[in-house]
Amino acid sequence: MRQAFHGHGASRGAALGHARVRLPHALDVAEEHIEADAVESELARLHAAIQAVRGEMHALRERLHGALAHEVGEFLDLHTLLLDDPELLQGLDRLIRSGRFSADYALRLQRDRIAGVFEAMDDPYFRSRIDDIDQVIGRIHAALHRRDAGMQGIAGEILVAETVAPAELVQLQAQGVLAIVTTAGSPLSHSAILARSLHLPMVIGAAGALQRVNDGDVLAVDGSSGLVVMEPNAADLRAHHQRVRVHARERKQLNRLRREPSRTLDGVDIKLYANAESREDVAEAHAQGAAGVGLYRTEFLFLQRAELPDEDEQFRAYRDVVLGMTGRTVTIRTLDLGADKADRTGLALRDEPNPALGLRGVRLSLARDGLLETQLRALLRASGYGPLRILLPMISSREEVREVRTKLDSVARDLRHEGHEIATHVPLGAMIEVPAAAIALSGFIGAVDFLSVGTNDLVQYLLAADRNNDALGDLYTPLHPAVLRLLRDVIRLANARGKPIAVCGEMAGDPMFAPLLLALGLNEFSLHPATLLEVRRKIRACDLAALKARAPALLRARDRAAILQWMDDCG
Amino acid sequence: MRQAFHGHGASRGAALGHARVRLPHALDVAEEHIEADAVESELARLHAAIQAVRGEMHALRERLHGALAHEVGEFLDLHTLLLDDPELLQGLDRLIRSGRFSADYALRLQRDRIAGVFEAMDDPYFRSRIDDIDQVIGRIHAALHRRDAGMQGIAGEILVAETVAPAELVQLQAQGVLAIVTTAGSPLSHSAILARSLHLPMVIGAAGALQRVNDGDVLAVDGSSGLVVMEPNAADLRAHHQRVRVHARERKQLNRLRREPSRTLDGVDIKLYANAESREDVAEAHAQGAAGVGLYRTEFLFLQRAELPDEDEQFRAYRDVVLGMTGRTVTIRTLDLGADKADRTGLALRDEPNPALGLRGVRLSLARDGLLETQLRALLRASGYGPLRILLPMISSREEVREVRTKLDSVARDLRHEGHEIATHVPLGAMIEVPAAAIALSGFIGAVDFLSVGTNDLVQYLLAADRNNDALGDLYTPLHPAVLRLLRDVIRLANARGKPIAVCGEMAGDPMFAPLLLALGLNEFSLHPATLLEVRRKIRACDLAALKARAPALLRARDRAAILQWMDDCG
Repeated sequence: MRQAFHGHGASRGAALGHARVRLPHALDVAEEHIEADAVESELARLHAAIQAVRGEMHALRERLHGALAHEVGEFLDLHTLLLDDPELLQGLDRLIRSGRFSADYALRLQRDRIAGVFEAMDDPYFRSRIDDIDQVIGRIHAALHRRDAGMQGIAGEILVAETVAPAELVQLQAQGVLAIVTTAGSPLSHSAILARSLHLPMVIGAAGALQRVNDGDVLAVDGSSGLVVMEPNAADLRAHHQRVRVHARERKQLNRLRREPSRTLDGVDIKLYANAESREDVAEAHAQGAAGVGLYRTEFLFLQRAELPDEDEQFRAYRDVVLGMTGRTVTIRTLDLGADKADRTGLALRDEPNPALGLRGVRLSLARDGLLETQLRALLRASGYGPLRILLPMISSREEVREVRTKLDSVARDLRHEGHEIATHVPLGAMIEVPAAAIALSGFIGAVDFLSVGTNDLVQYLLAADRNNDALGDLYTPLHPAVLRLLRDVIRLANARGKPIAVCGEMAGDPMFAPLLLALGLNEFSLHPATLLEVRRKIRACDLAALKARAPALLRARDRAAILQWMDDCG
Repeated sequence: MRQAFHGHGASRGAALGHARVRLPHALDVAEEHIEADAVESELARLHAAIQAVRGEMHALRERLHGALAHEVGEFLDLHTLLLDDPELLQGLDRLIRSGRFSADYALRLQRDRIAGVFEAMDDPYFRSRIDDIDQVIGRIHAALHRRDAGMQGIAGEILVAETVAPAELVQLQAQGVLAIVTTAGSPLSHSAILARSLHLPMVIGAAGALQRVNDGDVLAVDGSSGLVVMEPNAADLRAHHQRVRVHARERKQLNRLRREPSRTLDGVDIKLYANAESREDVAEAHAQGAAGVGLYRTEFLFLQRAELPDEDEQFRAYRDVVLGMTGRTVTIRTLDLGADKADRTGLALRDEPNPALGLRGVRLSLARDGLLETQLRALLRASGYGPLRILLPMISSREEVREVRTKLDSVARDLRHEGHEIATHVPLGAMIEVPAAAIALSGFIGAVDFLSVGTNDLVQYLLAADRNNDALGDLYTPLHPAVLRLLRDVIRLANARGKPIAVCGEMAGDPMFAPLLLALGLNEFSLHPATLLEVRRKIRACDLAALKARAPALLRARDRAAILQWMDDCG
């Protein structure tokens, strides 16, 4: 029977497909025994499923790119490690072999056993990782059933769930989910921002959907209006097809913007740089007409391996990025590792209670002998091949900038002495993501050549709200008066001192925020190439002078509602 | 042979005693077997040691008070839980009974076994708690040997170690340690600030001490000059006794200030409020002549129990504080619980990757049905017994203040309707500890009656540096230009709008920072009564007009060295 649910349109796009409903506590398997002669085939079935999950995780990791790899890769890496854990695997084999349990029930027993060990410790930290174990066991369980039923995961389906965490969202998209419908959450959450950057249709707050929709029900989802229709009738289907046509037409028009300038209605050119961390990103950035690379992440060189990349390996990677952008500026960020990354090199600490407030970014690079020097040498050598800038993550004080500057000068002298061809001047910039650096910028702006505002972290610290923590609801949001004021101050100071400044957080890649950032005086955006054309289109529809005239009204906003009202009026 | 080590004097006071050296990896026990007929006595020996540690931890928990209970209680609670873990205990018994191992070696095996399980998972989160297991096992081991040798822990000894974490410091003091000498660390670290507030002599950065000093060597420690002398000669001993006499005289002079005003040289009265969380604190605050209670923590009512305290229980606790201060203002903070606390009520989440950036403080109170309402009812009922103010922790937006204000008004109406006698006006204040609240204060200052700046958290978020994370060295420090500017802005705005504002972090309790806070315009301090007289003495030696005249120079400081220079010039 047709039924409509009304939520908030969190990410545009229309989808029509079967529902996959996720209720809490999915692994509820009854006790199930097997015959003695079925043990070997049951073991084979389990091992095939585990192998399938391994392949799936590997493929998933490969398909991740840009900010998403950064945000999600660490979860996948952790899960891959769990999947190789001998305790887990041998325990499963034992249960099937000695206990004559089905693979499904063995998974459940093993899950409960591991969870029980940690729960018995009554320690929040041990408990914190039960979720990861559940996800891995859940994946194996799903693979067992996929093999039985010949299903291809959630590809081509629409997920209906209470909430979806940012990391999970990216996995779901890579698995081929069509759209997402949640019953809770906020259209301003980090998940919603990510869904928009992934072009993944999403409706949030569709009350009642979890109670009414069953697996396999047909859903028509409209990510713009927030309408979700179960078992759509002929009129619903016509409306859906109309939406699909409109989106396709829009996409076509968007692609015509590849060779157009990012120029406002009143003729001001805005620079759109790309965030990247792979050759594919760089190629896409080039194709979309990015002004250059505004943030090239180097963590991928260090993760998932036991030994550090040496100077030559790093040099080749950086040189290739510079060559790939054929003369446009490339900004490479030094290693931004921390305890929250699945680091096997042993560089990062393993026991920080709050990794986001720990030894990460430039702090770690400065704390480990030779780490920064090697990277700076590789970067300077790559600077001989085209315009390159060096960007430092997690700068919090003038002292840190000066310490790096001293090392950079010394490394440059050494390299020249050794006969390397390096650029005369390699600009050194700082990420502005630690609130103290933003507030005290006037004290060290003279020591840097350019700036890049990492709004993802900056907002998280300013609001003391972990952006990946679902329980905080919409507490994490860039739409807070403090965020806007600090952004305004930082941009104004940089402009006054003639230092180029970009915003490189997710905010810059969401067309929704473009008018707001332009009003605050921003001239440079750095964003994943996937949404570059949408942001360009938005900028081309903006009258910069009019937006700037309305900036004082924006900065007078005292709460989120007032900021949203301003965006409605100016958007 | 006499030898001198020169470090930084981090916390004043002179100590003379035997050294207790802590080298890394202390539990290095060789394989040791016992006879079959010794099994029962070995088990008895182990159980007695475990029982002794239980008692010790319980006594320690009882002796903690004020900010220290807050900072450290959670560690102790966690360790107590580990001590009751059946996996741990039964494993030990089995090793002694079946393996015929000595209790010492069984401890080591069990430690390695548990650590191995977590290490095999290759997950930073599992590994993070190995330190706690080590501490608990180490305690049991120490108790085994105490029983053998009749020692009384580290009471009366001087600890020599590489570093000491803030939480540990408090345990050590409660255990009766005389002084602490470290070879690493910074005099501006959170540990050093805590040592000063504990009046525990501490020398930091005494290079070479770990290599040269052995257990039992006699040390003379001067926490003022940073001098540590091993095997002191007659002249050293005379110098030590002279220092002891000077300190005793100072203490006596200090006690005369109990009834003196906290008045600057130029005649301005500064209000010194007390931080408290027990009857003893309140009594001490009263005795030291505190202006009132500036921060009364209510977490103790909720921790270490499975069910929530009901309205009546809370009401009685709050009423007793109000009565205890005989008419002076009492400021009670609503529940500031989070995932980093050893909460057994199940209120807080258990799985936050960054608890400091999670669902804590007023966020948690608003997220749990009825929690805040019950506490507000109890607080309003207590307001009938004397001047009471309500303080909200972790406020980050205008919306949150308004939400609480609405609840407060509604609860007040209900109570009056029910016939309760409550104050006509109960001031509602906000903690300023989330940077966004500090920056956007002008947008909601009209909605609050007073403010209290929690510098401990504010600094941690501003610098994105966990104050309890040793690995960050001196990255965590209030001496950052951003901290000073933001404090100045917040204090200036509050003063201009006529809203009382205090600083209640450790900074307020350290006389070293008093001139700086006065220069920034602060008129109210809230601090643990233990250092109230020292801060009063410092304030009485300050010329407020001169300090304020030098404030612009302080705010021009671009780095820590410049701020320290200002403090030297003005201190």
